[in-house]
Amino acid sequence: MQKHYLDAHELAQLDAYWRASNYISVGQIYLLDNPLLKKSLSLHDVKPRLLGHWGTTPGLNFIYTHMNRLINHDDLNMFFIAGPGHGGPSVVAQTYLEGVYSEVYPKITQDEVGLQMLFKQFSFPGGIPSHAAPQTPGSIHEGGELGYALSHAYGAVFDNKDVIACCVVGDGEAETGPLATSWHSNKFLNPKTDGVVLPILHLNGYKIASPTILSRISHEELEALFRGYGYEPFFVEGDEPEAMHSKMAEVLDVIVKRIQTIWHEARVLNKEERPRWPMLILRTPKGWSGPKEVDGLKSEGHCRSHQVPFATFGSSPEHLTLLERWLKSYKPEELFDEKGRLFSHIASFAPKGEKRMGANPHTNGGALLKPLVLPDFKAYAVDVPSPAGGLAESTRVLGNYLRDVMAQNRQNFRVFGPDETASNRLNALFEVTNRTWMAQKDSFDEHLSADGRVMEILSEHTCQGWLEGYLLTGRHGFFSCYEAFIHIVDSMFNQHAKWLKVTSREIPWRKPIASLNYLLTSHVWRQDHNGFSHQDPGFIDVVVNKKAHIINVYFPPDANTLLWVGDWCLKSKNSINVIVAGKQPEVQWLSMPDAIAHCEQGMGIWEWASDRGEPDVILACCGDVPTLETLAAVRLLRELVPSVKIRVVNVVDLMALQPHSEHPHGWSDEAYNALFPKDVPTIFAYHGYPWLIHRLAYKRAHHEHLHVRGYKEEGTTTTPFDMVVLNDTDRFHLVMDVMHRVSKMKPYEEEICQKMTEKLAEHKAYIERYGIDMPEILEWRWK
Amino acid sequence: MQKHYLDAHELAQLDAYWRASNYISVGQIYLLDNPLLKKSLSLHDVKPRLLGHWGTTPGLNFIYTHMNRLINHDDLNMFFIAGPGHGGPSVVAQTYLEGVYSEVYPKITQDEVGLQMLFKQFSFPGGIPSHAAPQTPGSIHEGGELGYALSHAYGAVFDNKDVIACCVVGDGEAETGPLATSWHSNKFLNPKTDGVVLPILHLNGYKIASPTILSRISHEELEALFRGYGYEPFFVEGDEPEAMHSKMAEVLDVIVKRIQTIWHEARVLNKEERPRWPMLILRTPKGWSGPKEVDGLKSEGHCRSHQVPFATFGSSPEHLTLLERWLKSYKPEELFDEKGRLFSHIASFAPKGEKRMGANPHTNGGALLKPLVLPDFKAYAVDVPSPAGGLAESTRVLGNYLRDVMAQNRQNFRVFGPDETASNRLNALFEVTNRTWMAQKDSFDEHLSADGRVMEILSEHTCQGWLEGYLLTGRHGFFSCYEAFIHIVDSMFNQHAKWLKVTSREIPWRKPIASLNYLLTSHVWRQDHNGFSHQDPGFIDVVVNKKAHIINVYFPPDANTLLWVGDWCLKSKNSINVIVAGKQPEVQWLSMPDAIAHCEQGMGIWEWASDRGEPDVILACCGDVPTLETLAAVRLLRELVPSVKIRVVNVVDLMALQPHSEHPHGWSDEAYNALFPKDVPTIFAYHGYPWLIHRLAYKRAHHEHLHVRGYKEEGTTTTPFDMVVLNDTDRFHLVMDVMHRVSKMKPYEEEICQKMTEKLAEHKAYIERYGIDMPEILEWRWK
Repeated sequence: MQKHYLDAHELAQLDAYWRASNYISVGQIYLLDNPLLKKSLSLHDVKPRLLGHWGTTPGLNFIYTHMNRLINHDDLNMFFIAGPGHGGPSVVAQTYLEGVYSEVYPKITQDEVGLQMLFKQFSFPGGIPSHAAPQTPGSIHEGGELGYALSHAYGAVFDNKDVIACCVVGDGEAETGPLATSWHSNKFLNPKTDGVVLPILHLNGYKIASPTILSRISHEELEALFRGYGYEPFFVEGDEPEAMHSKMAEVLDVIVKRIQTIWHEARVLNKEERPRWPMLILRTPKGWSGPKEVDGLKSEGHCRSHQVPFATFGSSPEHLTLLERWLKSYKPEELFDEKGRLFSHIASFAPKGEKRMGANPHTNGGALLKPLVLPDFKAYAVDVPSPAGGLAESTRVLGNYLRDVMAQNRQNFRVFGPDETASNRLNALFEVTNRTWMAQKDSFDEHLSADGRVMEILSEHTCQGWLEGYLLTGRHGFFSCYEAFIHIVDSMFNQHAKWLKVTSREIPWRKPIASLNYLLTSHVWRQDHNGFSHQDPGFIDVVVNKKAHIINVYFPPDANTLLWVGDWCLKSKNSINVIVAGKQPEVQWLSMPDAIAHCEQGMGIWEWASDRGEPDVILACCGDVPTLETLAAVRLLRELVPSVKIRVVNVVDLMALQPHSEHPHGWSDEAYNALFPKDVPTIFAYHGYPWLIHRLAYKRAHHEHLHVRGYKEEGTTTTPFDMVVLNDTDRFHLVMDVMHRVSKMKPYEEEICQKMTEKLAEHKAYIERYGIDMPEILEWRWK
Repeated sequence: MQKHYLDAHELAQLDAYWRASNYISVGQIYLLDNPLLKKSLSLHDVKPRLLGHWGTTPGLNFIYTHMNRLINHDDLNMFFIAGPGHGGPSVVAQTYLEGVYSEVYPKITQDEVGLQMLFKQFSFPGGIPSHAAPQTPGSIHEGGELGYALSHAYGAVFDNKDVIACCVVGDGEAETGPLATSWHSNKFLNPKTDGVVLPILHLNGYKIASPTILSRISHEELEALFRGYGYEPFFVEGDEPEAMHSKMAEVLDVIVKRIQTIWHEARVLNKEERPRWPMLILRTPKGWSGPKEVDGLKSEGHCRSHQVPFATFGSSPEHLTLLERWLKSYKPEELFDEKGRLFSHIASFAPKGEKRMGANPHTNGGALLKPLVLPDFKAYAVDVPSPAGGLAESTRVLGNYLRDVMAQNRQNFRVFGPDETASNRLNALFEVTNRTWMAQKDSFDEHLSADGRVMEILSEHTCQGWLEGYLLTGRHGFFSCYEAFIHIVDSMFNQHAKWLKVTSREIPWRKPIASLNYLLTSHVWRQDHNGFSHQDPGFIDVVVNKKAHIINVYFPPDANTLLWVGDWCLKSKNSINVIVAGKQPEVQWLSMPDAIAHCEQGMGIWEWASDRGEPDVILACCGDVPTLETLAAVRLLRELVPSVKIRVVNVVDLMALQPHSEHPHGWSDEAYNALFPKDVPTIFAYHGYPWLIHRLAYKRAHHEHLHVRGYKEEGTTTTPFDMVVLNDTDRFHLVMDVMHRVSKMKPYEEEICQKMTEKLAEHKAYIERYGIDMPEILEWRWK
């Protein structure tokens, strides 16, 4: 019966298109030349080094082909996410068949010559990677690391009312943690104003070398799992192509109707309940349509077809015959004309123009990007009549600014974070919006609504994935997180950084997208109360390892500098910006005009805290808490040894320390040496692991006189001031550092170090008795 | 009816024990003094800084108390994992009530004085953290980062036939990716020989500031989700203590019977199917039994009770009354005698001796640790008659050794990895064991069995969590992973490193456990075929940020050195060891005696490749591929400019570069300066990001003459040799580096650099044509 769901013409066209894509996929993996098999296949036609992954490819081609049918049939606005790791051969074949590939890369023509180039370039030096890479038109998701397909898909459809992201999740990827929790994204999707994800769990049964979990549990369990995740699961299972085409078409038509019904209920009938969105479980053999057996062992439907099913052509000449037979099984003569062009009755099956998934404009988000309407950040300034002339919670001040950014950009700006938006003092956002929430609500809930624009889930992975998907489709966002736990997304950061490096340097047709902005707060120095497990400033080190031109790291020491930095980051493109700032009440140093001047330089002398002329010592600082300790040390020094000449340098833009050749914000050696004269000892108090400063400055002339203090992995549950003491970064240790390192201080060294040691002992005794810092620490003021 | 499941005495005793634990929990959060409320509560009795998390605590106390009942009733061997982040007040209270706390910390006596100290120390400087920290007896899991409770629990019970891990999963934590996938661990648990995890999903409804997803989906979805995960879910829901005690006891008795039945079926009746293990969903109000309202706002059953429900005692004097009333609601006079001792009829409820969960020996794994029976690694040596006298796949050689380690340690050694054991060439393991697998099997499956000891799931998080749980309970393990994707567990590594730092330095009763060993292969230089997304050596940088005494990083350049390193790591304790080694056929440099001598030093001169006496230049190398390129450069230099005097230094133990004061393996300055004389230019080819070498060596005398090459984030799909070329770390660039930096080379510089540039151009042209490296690169030999 199911065979008859499609008429013969439609079935034939579908199947031909699928065969064409499989043929082109196998060609990419194997062929260097002879792309149309016009001659009998010889060893010279086969690539000398065989790379690529066949196993997932035919299933991806099957899905993509059927999505084309749906797009045509229902005039859908759809794009494709290939979750399976090495799906490159499929998406390249598909975008080539629909003509997009040749539009983007005119050399790869739709004829025999183009086909040969297409085949050769795959996984070839100077060619293209084996994933749905940045180079692939229609891709916003590079399968490589696995785990993020679904969160990328959801991120892409938020605020994209009519867009459907067809997201294929491989059963290998489905075992990863980030993917396993991202199914719950359906509790954050508003059917009124968001598009929808059509998740397709593709059970082909195997990872690299063993079965997948989800392919080896019962049908009942599988169905229950996805009902439990809040979906309505549909199943398509089998391996006979004709029957499968019919089943797939029939089920997909039902699924599209379900989506349309849900949209109608939400958008016309104003139904407010969370819908049970449809999802599809597709079970097909791994390496479907490939050789059943190779060298006497099962290949199709086995993990042996994961990569290249057979490769030893030199020692096994029969493999050449096997390959030729395999390629010919797709009947290329029925697919391509003499010149290598797809016959028009097959080519006409592809959707037209921007309906082609490879040409969907949302997949080149930069082209759709509209700049944010930004309020004047100066209007949010904290009044600082003189340095240290006030207290403020920096992130709360930024929150006021973000509130108004949100109010003016309700279509293309969202804030993300793992349940810490309020804890991180960005509460003002809730004056104009809510947390996104489609699950059940109770009468006493606050700030939850379907149209909320603050997205909180206790999964840093999901937050990051959503944000990446949102940015890659041309919108803007902001991610706030506890500093220590942002390490959870180290590897996702790495992959996004790699994407940006490649797109910004090597792929001119990819237009710049908005930057990924992190606000790291509840940072290492103020996690005294939560203890050692919450203390880790190492994300910065991970960030700085990536290509310099796409990363920026800011340490605003107070609220006004944070406002400047926040504004700068929201305007920037194609970067990853890390802002580290405190949320506790802190001394404010700079008026807004001073903050602007300082931030524009990236670093500079704080004249009001410095002596004129050549200094005996430089006290440099980077980070809000190190800045406080540095200025406290300066005040102590002035009281104790008025003869010492001090220069105070504050670094707000970490990259300013690097040579200009390494980073666009890096200072020239000339400017740098004027700031840090070669022979003047510098005591540098830094927010993170101290060696990072050495790594950035080791080529500078003053490096051998640079002494850095910072977090050296000493921490526990204690007081804020004790945190700096444990790491020798407190005012008393800084004073001692100066005494040890400035030769002019020799006469005073012993006496003052003695005093400082006593102060430290007094501090320890006090906190062990009272549990809080001494009044002189808590109430310290500049002057 | 349910109320009558327990008799009056049992009910009274259970409830009194629960109240006592709640009282002690609230006391820890609030009280500095007056622990028994003998006087009316005054402001001086309250801590000046209020820290801690009440919300999760009463639920944890409820569960722990009921587990005590079960342990007594069924003589169970059980321990407790507190998943919820800040469960410290509960587990500390419980281990104090059962007497373990005072045994471990004799100063914290079971009387009024001890109670006061117990209260004061919580989240207090010099005291204890707010989690089930390393300091907490009975804990192998520090709630802090969230996500790993269940994988730790499963890791702990593998090969622990009679142990039950009661694992509480908070509904916040349940949203994380690592937790969401770790439910599938039940497909890897062998009822014949493993213990079992009793997962308790604790729905208290809220995270820090908003509801949790799982508490806001329908009962049907919740039940379906856990059936889908393969469990038999039981529900206990409510807030009336008496009824809840009865329900809980009744359901837990059923659950224990289920476990016993499953064990009987598997162990006596030899049933082979995967059981549907029971799990419990417990729904109780957040902050249960705390104040219903605070300042007119709902507190119990709301996220407002997440941390300290009220704190502003200075400005709100009525809070003092509220606190006193709250504490007295537990009727302390019925719980503690005049001296502050728990009445004996309540205390007798606690299990005895090692049955107490705080005293379960598995939670101090080091005390149970038995050294591995290790074969002589020298027996696996590759024959290397002369330097560069052979080819071998290093990890395959290590695999032979691991096979025999496995064969001789079938009770306490497992190998973990995300489906890459075979890909990483450790196949020999499958000669003696299989992959662990309890899900469905097919006739054509290979190497899958319930008793397999190679644990593969495509979740690095789960692999890491299992391994940590396995190690913390006194066993041994080995984790192999693609280098780039180990970043996925950066944050888990961080937390384990913090645990080891604290336990090894500050907690003498915690005995040393086996080290966590990573083999990182499929590394950056040989991911040419998989492309840029697979190329990342940055995990090493994350590792080196942690406390030096617990980390080691090894770069064995060939198979025999890898054998030495593997053996060393399996013998070591309380460390995290990272081994980076290739899996491709590579030139072998050292015979086994030479390998041993070299590895024992950590680094040294390769005399056979060096000139005698003072060198003009040092070529140093660290990592297998950089070593190859360095020796190829040396050979080129000897041909091109025979007059240059070269010293070749190879570094196998990265930590040898650090000063001895920073790491136990660090070389003294004297020895270091003899190896790297101050004024001799050193060209250092390194496996990872080059700045790490500067960071390790910046205090050394030769630092200004140190020039490092390494991975600088340049990569794509290309050939192996092109990977080093893209990063200027190839033989030709190294030769040019020498020519630029050795003044004696001035006369030859231009000519030779010209030659090298031509070679590089030839290479590029060749690979773009043929897709493989030039024969002279592929077939290069030393001499």
